[in-house]
Amino acid sequence: MCHYLDNSATTKVCRAAAEKAYTVMTETFGNPSSLHTLGIRAEQELTVARRAVASLLGLNPSGADLSCITFTSGGTEANNLAIFGAAAANKRLGRHIVTTAVEHPSVLEAVKQLEREGFELTIVPPDARGDYDAHALANACREDTVLVCIMLVNNELGTLLPVKDAVSLIRRRSPKAFIHCDAVQAAGKIPLKVLSLDVDTLSISGHKLHAPKGVGALYVKRGVRLVPRTWGGGQERSLRSGTEAVPMIAAFGEAIKALPAPAVQMPRYATLCQKLETELASIHNVVLHTPASVVPYIRNLSVCGYKSETLVHFLAQREIYVSAGSACAKGHDSHVLGALHLPSEQISSALRISLCADNTPDDIDAFVHALKEAIASLAHT
Amino acid sequence: MCHYLDNSATTKVCRAAAEKAYTVMTETFGNPSSLHTLGIRAEQELTVARRAVASLLGLNPSGADLSCITFTSGGTEANNLAIFGAAAANKRLGRHIVTTAVEHPSVLEAVKQLEREGFELTIVPPDARGDYDAHALANACREDTVLVCIMLVNNELGTLLPVKDAVSLIRRRSPKAFIHCDAVQAAGKIPLKVLSLDVDTLSISGHKLHAPKGVGALYVKRGVRLVPRTWGGGQERSLRSGTEAVPMIAAFGEAIKALPAPAVQMPRYATLCQKLETELASIHNVVLHTPASVVPYIRNLSVCGYKSETLVHFLAQREIYVSAGSACAKGHDSHVLGALHLPSEQISSALRISLCADNTPDDIDAFVHALKEAIASLAHT
Repeated sequence: MCHYLDNSATTKVCRAAAEKAYTVMTETFGNPSSLHTLGIRAEQELTVARRAVASLLGLNPSGADLSCITFTSGGTEANNLAIFGAAAANKRLGRHIVTTAVEHPSVLEAVKQLEREGFELTIVPPDARGDYDAHALANACREDTVLVCIMLVNNELGTLLPVKDAVSLIRRRSPKAFIHCDAVQAAGKIPLKVLSLDVDTLSISGHKLHAPKGVGALYVKRGVRLVPRTWGGGQERSLRSGTEAVPMIAAFGEAIKALPAPAVQMPRYATLCQKLETELASIHNVVLHTPASVVPYIRNLSVCGYKSETLVHFLAQREIYVSAGSACAKGHDSHVLGALHLPSEQISSALRISLCADNTPDDIDAFVHALKEAIASLAHT
Repeated sequence: MCHYLDNSATTKVCRAAAEKAYTVMTETFGNPSSLHTLGIRAEQELTVARRAVASLLGLNPSGADLSCITFTSGGTEANNLAIFGAAAANKRLGRHIVTTAVEHPSVLEAVKQLEREGFELTIVPPDARGDYDAHALANACREDTVLVCIMLVNNELGTLLPVKDAVSLIRRRSPKAFIHCDAVQAAGKIPLKVLSLDVDTLSISGHKLHAPKGVGALYVKRGVRLVPRTWGGGQERSLRSGTEAVPMIAAFGEAIKALPAPAVQMPRYATLCQKLETELASIHNVVLHTPASVVPYIRNLSVCGYKSETLVHFLAQREIYVSAGSACAKGHDSHVLGALHLPSEQISSALRISLCADNTPDDIDAFVHALKEAIASLAHT
């Protein structure tokens, strides 16, 4: 019996999505750019998936809103396209970039690369619990700020950032600023209304919501210009050339359709999370790192005296899967926990539990039981 | 009965590859960067596929050669990574770029973007038949040439370009030149020995050899430095960040393993191609555009007096699938045929037939029969 509690790293592909990918690979295999019937059928698959993404973001799934959705190879490419594309389009207006200290590496490393290319970078730290204040974010912006990147849900702590309020303040303070939002850990779980967030671009990833790895999407507000990163045959309205990954994109659409509504998911997470917190409260080595504004499907904790990696392996031997920080850090210390100025002992013993709609109270029981076993049987470092 | 003669646009995913993708999606769904067992299993899938790609390129499938293979989302991303990555890494050494007039848009549009960013571009035309001379390519290079892009097999005419001879001349003439080869239309069909070509980078695409769309690879010679295009979690030795598209990559490996050897494929193509040419010789409206150095799996012809698009639709109604030029051009006039200075009537009536190992003499018969029917029944333009 597998207890998969690492859904912010990646999710299991749902049956409907996997079957869709298989059918497209073997039957609807035309090139969407081909003029003949096989090409047209492949292109129709793209449209169906684009409608699903539009719906997920609270857009009108028919008509002009569809042209706001660009498919990419994943969240990382979507973030990079927004960041480099906006910087190249707006560099004549200014050179200042603002972002948060807790962004995903596909945002942080991209803006650091822009810093090496001559941009000036302001990285706003969180408060001691990991929370962000909309005014603090806006106050970091200036008249010459041309790019602001604020994630919606942090992937390690589960912080829900005040994107809407911050954007509203930034729009007044920095009229030239292009605002990008990484919504990879939010999409499919919390209700998303991209228009009310008032961002210029917003990125999502398929494999965080039960679609396969290798597909993502970037929302680009109508009228907003990005310089493409990938040049070629002019696919995706010339914003992202390259033959579209039709099987993955079609599967992405199916995965979105198969998601329970946020209103169904959220109470489940709240129950599981409450259970987890109650059980962990009785383990004296455990410290929870919970921001005040936090989603109920991500929890970060330190098991003081035990290395994350050792715990991850101990749990995996019992088919319980969790992360040490984030998957992308791959054994390196978390920059997010670092930004909280936690003691190094807590950083090196951090675990992340992340839920999906398929998790059950059994998964929480198995995790807590095995964690107690680990503490009892493993050597204290 | 479907007669698919558009294999240079895309190919049908082979059963083994589609099944592999399905299994990985539903069973080996971990994130390759995760420290736990599910992550390790996903990473092993990447290694198996990397070995297959290495073998395909004539590299040692075990050991250090594996680190020369970087997975991308396709041929377009691989070409862009090589071109922009090399230009960024070498721009202090010079600003001159050389390429051919018949490259794929993912090369031509990328170098044109570099031209807009301050590089100087020399585009070498083919001779009247579409052939290239190694000396003509080398003569376009200078001491300050920092990037040369020469494709191995042209996607519209089937021209086999003299990459090895040209590289050998260019290495002496332009010691600073970084040399990239787009081998998308060659890989899996003709024998490839990437080391003997002596290029710095070489790109291939999965969906041209019966893997799914959404995966490709870039070979990067050991010791060669590229500036990444995609920044983030540091996957693919930090050259291409982003969670790897494990199902597609694993399917790519399976598709490569399922390919008949070039020595088996080539005589089949030669037979089919001979048959095609013989049959077409009896149709007086048809002009074949065949370079002297050409592969036997791509043929380009004009059906004078009939628009390509009309013919493509007429044939598709009979389940015979061919291209008007290339899929990527999507109805625009071909820049490749334009480079041959053909009469516009021939350019607007061009068709491309492209074969895979599954094609049979029946497919050729069906095409020729339907083409005669089209000529007899459609209005002459």
